Amino acid sequence: MYKAKVNITLRKSILDPKGKAAHHALQNLGLKNVEDVRIGKFVEMNIEAGSKEEAQDIAETACAKLLANEVMEDYRIDIE
Amino acid sequence: MYKAKVNITLRKSILDPKGKAAHHALQNLGLKNVEDVRIGKFVEMNIEAGSKEEAQDIAETACAKLLANEVMEDYRIDIE
Repeated sequence: MYKAKVNITLRKSILDPKGKAAHHALQNLGLKNVEDVRIGKFVEMNIEAGSKEEAQDIAETACAKLLANEVMEDYRIDIE
Repeated sequence: MYKAKVNITLRKSILDPKGKAAHHALQNLGLKNVEDVRIGKFVEMNIEAGSKEEAQDIAETACAKLLANEVMEDYRIDIE
């Protein structure tokens, strides 16, 4: 059993209104040193697989088919 | 300038309907080996600070005050 941790972020060229709103709110809270806030998704899942490579393949498939929108988003998978 | 990466997850005891829906959809796509899907938020931000510790403190404040709901969510901060 492997644990996959997936970070999904909007591509750099795509505008991130959630991040912009969070950045603005942080400024209003006095955290002026925070810049370039971007908000994405974090997905954790357990994968039943024979090897780390197999777990990685399954996680890739899950991202490509369902979890991420590859037109607008990048993802990074860590298998533990 | 430090880069803070924050993973925000629902606490284990809190029901995660988004994760349940994703799990169900993955099963329907034939990915039967995936279990216990949980979906959270991923926040990236740049922090202008004199030291890693100071950057960590600023990120903690941002999470506690705005980004995470500590009643329902846990967060983990990585400073790079």
